[in-house]
Amino acid sequence: MDRRSFLKTSALGGGAAAATSLAAPAVAQGRITWRMVTTWPRNFPGLGTGAQRVADRINAAADGAMTVEVFAAGEMVPALQSLDAVIDGSAEMSHGAAYYWQNKSVGLSFFTGVPFGMTSRELAAWVRYLGGQELYDDIYDDFGVQAFLSGDTGTQAGGWFQNELGGIDDIQGMRFRTPGLGGQVWQKMGASVTNLAGGEIFAALQSGALDAAEFVGPYNDRALGFHQVRKHYYTSSFIEPGLATELVVDKAKYQELPSNLQAIIRDACQAEYDQVPSEFYANDPIALNDMVENHGVTVHNDWPESILEAGAAASRELLIEILDSSDAKTKATAESFVQNLNLLRTRTENTDLTFAQARLKYFDVSDLG
Amino acid sequence: MDRRSFLKTSALGGGAAAATSLAAPAVAQGRITWRMVTTWPRNFPGLGTGAQRVADRINAAADGAMTVEVFAAGEMVPALQSLDAVIDGSAEMSHGAAYYWQNKSVGLSFFTGVPFGMTSRELAAWVRYLGGQELYDDIYDDFGVQAFLSGDTGTQAGGWFQNELGGIDDIQGMRFRTPGLGGQVWQKMGASVTNLAGGEIFAALQSGALDAAEFVGPYNDRALGFHQVRKHYYTSSFIEPGLATELVVDKAKYQELPSNLQAIIRDACQAEYDQVPSEFYANDPIALNDMVENHGVTVHNDWPESILEAGAAASRELLIEILDSSDAKTKATAESFVQNLNLLRTRTENTDLTFAQARLKYFDVSDLG
Repeated sequence: MDRRSFLKTSALGGGAAAATSLAAPAVAQGRITWRMVTTWPRNFPGLGTGAQRVADRINAAADGAMTVEVFAAGEMVPALQSLDAVIDGSAEMSHGAAYYWQNKSVGLSFFTGVPFGMTSRELAAWVRYLGGQELYDDIYDDFGVQAFLSGDTGTQAGGWFQNELGGIDDIQGMRFRTPGLGGQVWQKMGASVTNLAGGEIFAALQSGALDAAEFVGPYNDRALGFHQVRKHYYTSSFIEPGLATELVVDKAKYQELPSNLQAIIRDACQAEYDQVPSEFYANDPIALNDMVENHGVTVHNDWPESILEAGAAASRELLIEILDSSDAKTKATAESFVQNLNLLRTRTENTDLTFAQARLKYFDVSDLG
Repeated sequence: MDRRSFLKTSALGGGAAAATSLAAPAVAQGRITWRMVTTWPRNFPGLGTGAQRVADRINAAADGAMTVEVFAAGEMVPALQSLDAVIDGSAEMSHGAAYYWQNKSVGLSFFTGVPFGMTSRELAAWVRYLGGQELYDDIYDDFGVQAFLSGDTGTQAGGWFQNELGGIDDIQGMRFRTPGLGGQVWQKMGASVTNLAGGEIFAALQSGALDAAEFVGPYNDRALGFHQVRKHYYTSSFIEPGLATELVVDKAKYQELPSNLQAIIRDACQAEYDQVPSEFYANDPIALNDMVENHGVTVHNDWPESILEAGAAASRELLIEILDSSDAKTKATAESFVQNLNLLRTRTENTDLTFAQARLKYFDVSDLG
């Protein structure tokens, strides 16, 4: 709490002493400090920075009535114990991505992003207008927590490879690093999939323990140096059309907050659902240009057809397996997701895609920049 | 102000009397009421609703310290006098779109959207990370106001036509309704362009005074009934790749606000920059499906090549004219816009576009919905 906030809080406390009953909520507000654990290293581009900004926004708007303290991965608990820290009460908030908690419910994957699934705009439309938030709440109710979307990387890059890929044969048995449902898809396609933490990928590529890897996109990947050890970069991921982050809160404690603090937390998360993609959309092309111009990276916008065909078939198979889940909430979420994906993609395809194609083909102002 | 807020405000005021000097800011906060004039009809889908939500978010987060009252177009001043109302002090805020104020500076157009220009994600990346906000501020400084992006429709629809278009010859002399820079582009392409207010379009199409018209997209267009009088709908606009809304505030009064209220206003606008597109992305395809299935509308995703070629050439010509502006701030804004468009579109094209094409071609789950 900064000095000005401290003075303001003291002022409210002092004032309230003269009007005890009516001013009680203001006094209570002045005492609220919440701990936010995160799954990200401190200042990890776009994701750690996004978590910190959620806290900064809340602190600025609440003006001392509430203070959120951020703990990066490992500072209070290891990254993958963040949700449990909220559930067991050692923290009030966790910032991460819902698919980290697939061991609690596979349905949570849909609120991060799934292979060949929703883009960041489609996901927000589903969550905010077409029943997604209710399903998200329903799953998390079992754990006494509630989540808000709090950022999105946009469509990620596809990965780093030793050579240009000729087709599906080239990835058979390939030791490829990719986590989660995307990993299951690549496994079905014939790759030998392993998951490694972000910080371990570079060394594994360098030693040859890994043939290839995907992580996030140019902005993060450059920071980890992958371009030094692999030169063929596929820029469009079909397994991660977006990766949404989330803020999870202790639901009972959240509901006990004054309604203005509830509103401040919600709006901070939603503002970050715009800020985080802005950070990626601005920094990804800068990082990519640098790697191409200064580090000899070859960019491939398109995958070979046989890889896309196999990837789509594997993704469809995976979706059918989840639709068949014995867990009622996972099943309901998957059904709503597929139904709304079928609806929402039509707008993307007949409007956004068509515009981007037309601009690419007909509108060249590269000489004017 | 609702009863609860009123009580809270009274409490702070009463309390402050016992601790006058320290509590002064709280007292000042309790008295702030701001008037928001808007360029939209009340509850106009996505745009009027978006303006109301900005106010609702501020009111909820400020908890009585600030109350924003919304005046729809015509309730206090006519739509196109909204900015002047803030400049002359009769309102503190205006919600509209920057391109309405091209008579003050053509440079403002870039913060709404220009033909073949930035998408909503690209615009936010430029404004938030690549110098756009500073240029926006610089233009508005001349008028004592400041603006924040507060929503975006996403890529709009191209328009309603009597017949399928065969090529550029078909639009020569066509009486087409489209405003602003898009209108200048269609004029250069050979159409006879007129601007009419939204509420006058239907009657002009019905009487034959207009051959064709574009307005927003399926969600708004259906509400105005255009599908009853024209059956050929081109769904992807090359003149409006996005339309951003803005909240303009009286800069001096804004800077006098306590910093938490400044933060609340900023975050409310940025949260709406996600909420408004979500509203359009969810509702556009529902409205379009209804018009196709129940009202005999024929959808065309693609324009004829010769129309796209002519549209791109005209848009480029227009951009060159603006780059040549004698107004230094307009010129600087156009230069930054073009430079960053050239950067940002590469991400859209090598990542988002490639993903959307792959999904369209290879991933079909329409039988699972």
